[in-house]
Formats: sequence, structure tokens, C-alpha cells
Amino acid sequence: MQFAELREQVVAANLALVEAGLVILTFGNASIADRAAGVLAIKPSGVEYETLRPEDVPVLDLASGAVVAGDRRPSADAPTHLFLVRAFATMGAVVHTHSPYATAWAQARRDLPCLGTTHADHFRGPVPVTRALTDAEIEADYEVQTGAVIVETFANRNIDPLAVPAVLVASHGPFVWGASVEAAVENAVVLEDVARSSYRSISLAGDIEAIAEPLLAKHFERKHGAAAYYGQPA
Amino acid sequence: MQFAELREQVVAANLALVEAGLVILTFGNASIADRAAGVLAIKPSGVEYETLRPEDVPVLDLASGAVVAGDRRPSADAPTHLFLVRAFATMGAVVHTHSPYATAWAQARRDLPCLGTTHADHFRGPVPVTRALTDAEIEADYEVQTGAVIVETFANRNIDPLAVPAVLVASHGPFVWGASVEAAVENAVVLEDVARSSYRSISLAGDIEAIAEPLLAKHFERKHGAAAYYGQPA
Amino acid sequence: MQFAELREQVVAANLALVEAGLVILTFGNASIADRAAGVLAIKPSGVEYETLRPEDVPVLDLASGAVVAGDRRPSADAPTHLFLVRAFATMGAVVHTHSPYATAWAQARRDLPCLGTTHADHFRGPVPVTRALTDAEIEADYEVQTGAVIVETFANRNIDPLAVPAVLVASHGPFVWGASVEAAVENAVVLEDVARSSYRSISLAGDIEAIAEPLLAKHFERKHGAAAYYGQPA
Amino acid sequence: MQFAELREQVVAANLALVEAGLVILTFGNASIADRAAGVLAIKPSGVEYETLRPEDVPVLDLASGAVVAGDRRPSADAPTHLFLVRAFATMGAVVHTHSPYATAWAQARRDLPCLGTTHADHFRGPVPVTRALTDAEIEADYEVQTGAVIVETFANRNIDPLAVPAVLVASHGPFVWGASVEAAVENAVVLEDVARSSYRSISLAGDIEAIAEPLLAKHFERKHGAAAYYGQPA
Repeated sequence: MQFAELREQVVAANLALVEAGLVILTFGNASIADRAAGVLAIKPSGVEYETLRPEDVPVLDLASGAVVAGDRRPSADAPTHLFLVRAFATMGAVVHTHSPYATAWAQARRDLPCLGTTHADHFRGPVPVTRALTDAEIEADYEVQTGAVIVETFANRNIDPLAVPAVLVASHGPFVWGASVEAAVENAVVLEDVARSSYRSISLAGDIEAIAEPLLAKHFERKHGAAAYYGQPA
Repeated sequence: MQFAELREQVVAANLALVEAGLVILTFGNASIADRAAGVLAIKPSGVEYETLRPEDVPVLDLASGAVVAGDRRPSADAPTHLFLVRAFATMGAVVHTHSPYATAWAQARRDLPCLGTTHADHFRGPVPVTRALTDAEIEADYEVQTGAVIVETFANRNIDPLAVPAVLVASHGPFVWGASVEAAVENAVVLEDVARSSYRSISLAGDIEAIAEPLLAKHFERKHGAAAYYGQPA
Repeated sequence: MQFAELREQVVAANLALVEAGLVILTFGNASIADRAAGVLAIKPSGVEYETLRPEDVPVLDLASGAVVAGDRRPSADAPTHLFLVRAFATMGAVVHTHSPYATAWAQARRDLPCLGTTHADHFRGPVPVTRALTDAEIEADYEVQTGAVIVETFANRNIDPLAVPAVLVASHGPFVWGASVEAAVENAVVLEDVARSSYRSISLAGDIEAIAEPLLAKHFERKHGAAAYYGQPA
Repeated sequence: MQFAELREQVVAANLALVEAGLVILTFGNASIADRAAGVLAIKPSGVEYETLRPEDVPVLDLASGAVVAGDRRPSADAPTHLFLVRAFATMGAVVHTHSPYATAWAQARRDLPCLGTTHADHFRGPVPVTRALTDAEIEADYEVQTGAVIVETFANRNIDPLAVPAVLVASHGPFVWGASVEAAVENAVVLEDVARSSYRSISLAGDIEAIAEPLLAKHFERKHGAAAYYGQPA
């Protein structure tokens, strides 16, 4: 089988989303880019997770989007994944779920504010919500335009996609990513966790202020900065 | 055993509701119509799911409602199922649950608005809530009138029951359906999921507007329209 | 072992509460009255459910409260159970939990209104909240007074304890009962379910009206009345 | 292996937090002090719970904080644990989680009020929230200052740390403790339970008053006072 390891990793990542409780039915997809080989492997469309095998995973040419291995139709969201991976050179993997709390924020069309240190450990500021797509964008080329509005959001707000590796697509749900697929899945798990706790904090206290910049920086840097000291030395 | 396959499917559908977390105790029922044979098979009343066997499943004449196979009493809600299946020729199976979030909306007597794409994938617009039954309707022929008020709701609002395959019966809970029993169960699972996310979106943002018609159409059509491209080719 | 069957039933009922997710740690207790024998068997105090054996279950004289079998200390709440069973002749078993949604209502010191048919199937009207105990009642004879304030609530509001087999003790949590222990456990499960759905309905719609009396009567009577038609004939 | 029993207890306590659903990923840590030996054993930083073995558990000198056994880097929060154990002589173990409801309160920067008897059984009054750290505190010596602000909170409000064995660190999450590690873990479980029920009570009834002092005293004393009568005699 071509791209065997890559396709096995895609299966494992999709199953990890199910085990973490982030997806139901067939509503989620994970993809991994192999930039050296110039390809992206992604979940096939509408296939149940229990029966997903590596040979079912389509492999797409990163530049053209053409299927170069596998005979299943790729996820309907593949054009969004491709758009993101092309636009953001540091991105190694993309995860799309409809995890319940993150989706609630996306449907509410609100940024997820940074209210605590678990958020700050993974996302260096609010997780932004996109603008709604225009009717023309929806009708012409919907999945490509979904990628485009994510990139537009990060450009307009000058956000580094590895500092805030997630977005809430308005009226839709989260896309999450990372340099590695392990990081992308972990970020998706944490996004749901903080979407949940911040939903409840706002219920308790109304529109509280985000945490102060020094606390945000402290937590993000102790995990991700040059002087990180969380975890074991490599 | 008569109607063996049909009755096995009814057992499987009822168990699928339990596994999906949509019912507790004996509070839910699924039925399947076999229009060629002119019958409807439905869960027996008050029987625990763990002990439910195909031979326990009553089979009713679709026209008269008389039991034509099986010696258990049918679900108390059988007259509602029969009314729906007679009124809506495209309906192949009906599911009734008290799944928690959908029931919360039904008790709140509010339509479930379409706030996101998972909703739009399955329900082409809001899931309507019925009016309350009158005292006379409750006292005369309660379960039949429950069916009638559902049909009235779809007629008055000019909704195609396969485009919006669910209803919230006021102060009661959801009835959900589909052309096939697999579709009916999936729609029940998705209804609960979107009832949950939209409950939370409204908590976060108040009475937000439903999604725009082009986005609603796009998502429904990419799964259900003539030009559907979600999932694998048949 | 004396009262072997009764004590086995008490163990089974306590484990059923854990399996239904109604209690954590050691925070719940079930008791069963054997009126012919003049005794009440109840969970021992502070014993973990996993290790609970029939011989650990204390058996109390119904009239005096003295332990007549078993060498473990009874639940600290035993005087409340005894008070209830003495006051209400139709009561066969009592269950006390801190199930999360019912406890939220008890802490909020609000009656649980009847907003839907699942509630009406089991509780013929609102589940009442007691008044707070006075300082003197707390200091003198706390657990007995907890029973007394429950009985006072039902007397003042003229509620039949088998028509509404549950109460919310203010700032504390639910006590639930039934003619049989199976009914008591089922009522505890349903109380938590409707406490949850009605919490959410009120979040969605504010202080909505309770369901109309005919619908309440219809559902309660179809399960419990002389002309009940839910379930299989006996 | 040095300190074998102590390090095995630390592993067991950390796993108990996972089993109780209080932590996800690697986001929580438990430590135990052995005052006779002058050491504190704590979870290593960023190690997954499934792979955690006693020999991975670092043992620190209680006075200096230096690692005296084990070759893994201690939890990044170790300076907070050390600060607490040094300041509070009655404390035998410390647990830090981001359990979801307690974290929601911490992010909302609200004291968790005592609204019911389960709270009163374990915490003799509100669980306090700390003030936010100053920028200087965050930048200089963050984890030490987190311990200091906890101690300051208990000193300013004159709270006995064994009467209220938990705190909500503002914009962060709970630290919980006890005389023994079993008590610390139980307190963490109960904190999450009461953070949940009180969140919901406030949603139902707004800012209700805390329970009266006699009820609070009654419940705390029946479990912890000199005349405690909950549980079995020792």
C-alpha cells in the first residue's frame, strides 16, 4: 500500500477524535500533510469510524487536490483542509469536529475569550470566530471559501496560526490544527474543554474580562516558548 | 415467526435508541412500516429493552390498527405512529424518545431554530413545536390527537416531512422519522445533538438569527439533493 | 442470617442507585420496610457500595428504631426514613440521593414544576420543596425534624404521597419513595430526569406555566389509575 | 527504590483523579508530604497517567525543594504544593485539577457559596477565590506566588485550611487538600460535585443566600467534629 504509515496515522487520529468524545456518527475528519511528498491524506466521506481502514484513506496531491492513492471519495471538507495547509506553512495536520461546546460558540458567532490558564496553555489569546460567508461564497465554491474565510480571519487580526491553532467557523464548528497530528488532536480536546468551562463562567459572571496579558504569556510560554519548562526535557 | 425480519429490525432500532443514550427505562419506541404488506411493527408497551425479543413485537394492520401478529400489547403511543404513517406516504419508520435536550425544547414550547450546519445537514429549517392539545382532544382520543396535531402543524406551515423529519410535541417530546429506519434513528441522534448545541448557543448569545437560507440549502442539498456529494457513490 | 431476603433487596437497591448515576462516594441510601415483620432495613452509614454485603445491612424495629439485626451503625439519615415510613402507611421503600439536578432544585428552594408528560407519568403535580428547618429543629433532633418537615409539607399542601412520591428537602436534596422498592428506585431515576429537562426548559423559556390539568391527569392515569393501559396486563 | 510506598501512593492518587473524571490529558497533579522524612512526592511534569510508575515520581526535600529521589522533572506546579505544605502544618496531601465546574467558578472569579448539605459536609463555608496575581508576581516567581496568594487568602479571611480544604485560584482552577491523601482526593471529588449543583441552583434562582449557620455547623460537625456520628466507629 502506498503512503501506508501516513494513512495509518490518519486512521488513528480519526479514531482518537471518537474516543475523546468530540464526534458522533460520521461528523468529523482529520487530515495529515506530508510536505516532503507533496500530499495530504484525509478521512473518506461518510465512512463510519469503526470500519475505517488505512486503504480507505484517500491521499491527495497537495497542489492540485487530485486523488493520488485510494479509491474512496475524500471528505466533503477536503478543499477546506487543502486551503489551510497551503496557506499556513507551519501546519502539519488539521482536525474538524462538531464538538458540542465549541460548536455552541461557533453558532453563537462569538470569539471564545481566554478566561483561564488551560486556555492560555494552548491558545495565546481568544479563539476567533469567522465572519459569515456571503451568499455568493456559499453558492460558488463553499468548501474552498470556508478555508479562505479562516485565512482571512487570521490575516485581518494578525494572529499566528501556531499561537492560536483553532478557529470557530460561524454557524458551523471548529477547525483545529497543529505542527503534528498529535498536537492537532490535543488542541481539539483542549478547545472543547475550555469552550465548556468558559461557557459556564459566562453563565455565572456575565461577560467577564479576559485574563491579563502577563498570565496569558506566562502559561503559553512555559509550555511553548524558547524557555519552556513544562514536561520532561527532550 | 411471521414478519420475522421486520420484527428483528424493530428490536434493533429500539436497542439503537438505548445505545445512543436517547432513552432511559422504557421511555421510547420505534416502529417500522411495511407498506407492501400493509402493516406496522412497533415496540410492545412497558417492556424492558434488555429482554425485548422479535416475537414480543406486535404487528398491526396499517389500516385498522388491529394486531395481526404477536400477543403483547403495543406501545401506548401506537395510535400516534399509525396516524403519522397513514398521513405521510414517504415515511418508513417512526421513532419517539424523551431525549433530554429535545424534550427541554418541547417543554419550553419553542421551535428548535436552525443555528448551524449540522442542523441544516438533516433538517431543512426549524424543527416545529406543535400547539398544545385542547382539553377535549386530550380527553377523547389522546394518542390519535397527538398524531393529528403533528400533521396539522406540517400542513399549516407547509413543511415537507422528509425535509424536516422531526417534530417537538408541546409539553411532551420529539417524534422523529425517515424513509428508512436507519434514517429515522440517525435523525433522532442528530436532533438531540443540535437541540443541545442550540440550547447552549442561545444561552451564550440570546435569540440569535437562524442561519441564512443559502447556507441551509447548501448543507441540506449536499447530503440529500439530486446533486448530493457527501458520502460514497452508491 | 435473619431477614436475608430483605437485606439482599436493600443491597440491590443501593447498587441500583449507583448504577443509575444518582449517587457518588457514599452519598445515598435506600431502605425497605417490612410492615408484617415490623422492621425497616437500611444502608449502613459511610460504607462503600462496592463492599456492601447483606450482613452489613442493619435492620431496625419500625416502632422504636432499635437495631434488631446486624452490627453496623445505620445510615445517619435512618431517623428520617423511619419518620416517613411511620407517617405514610402506603410507603414501602425510601430512597435518598443527592442526584445532581434534583439537588440543584432543592438548593434553589424551588418546587419542581410539572412541565411535561414524563413528569406527569410519575408525579401528579409539582414535586414540592420543604421550608427551611428552624435553628431549633436543626439543633435538637435534626434527622427526625427532616422527616417531620416532609410530612408537614404534604399535609399543608394536601398531597397524596403515592401520587407525588418525592420531595425536595430545602438546601439538601431529594427523598423519593414508592409502594415497592422497584417503584422507589424508578421514581428516583425519573425525578432526576425531569429535574434536568425542566431546568433546561426554564433556561430556554423562563418561568413557563405548568402543563394543563387534563394532560397531567391523562398521563398519570394511563400509568397508575384504575383504567391504566400502559404496559402489559398483569 | 527509595520512598517506595510514598511514591506508590502518589501514583494511586493521580490515577484516582483520572478515574473520578477530574482531569484530562496531563492536567492535574497530586502530591503527598511525609513530614517525618521531610519530603514531598509529586507527579512528574507532562507524563501521561497510563504510563506513570512509582519510580517516575520525584521526591523533593520539603525545606529546599531539591529533588532527592527520581530522575524526572517534577510537576511545574511543585513550588505551589511546597508553599502550601510548608505554610499549613495540618496538610498531608495536595491535589490540583482543572475539574470543569470548579474551574468555571475560578474563571468567573467567584467564591463557591455553601448552598447545601453536601457542601457543608466537607467545607465549613464558602470555598474562597483568590485575588488575581499582580503582573510582578506572575513575572517573577509565578508558581511560588500562586501558593502565596492562597495562603494570603486564608489568612486575610481567617479560614482554617482543614475546615475549608480547597481554594479556587482566580482564572486558573482548584487546589484541594486534606490531612490524608484519601481525604484530599475525596474533597476534590466533592468540590466538583458541589460546584456543579451550585452552578445550576444559581441558574435557577439567581444569587440565593448561603445556608444558615446552624445547618452548616450541623452537617460539618456530624462528619468531622468531636461528636461525629457519620460512618462506622473506628
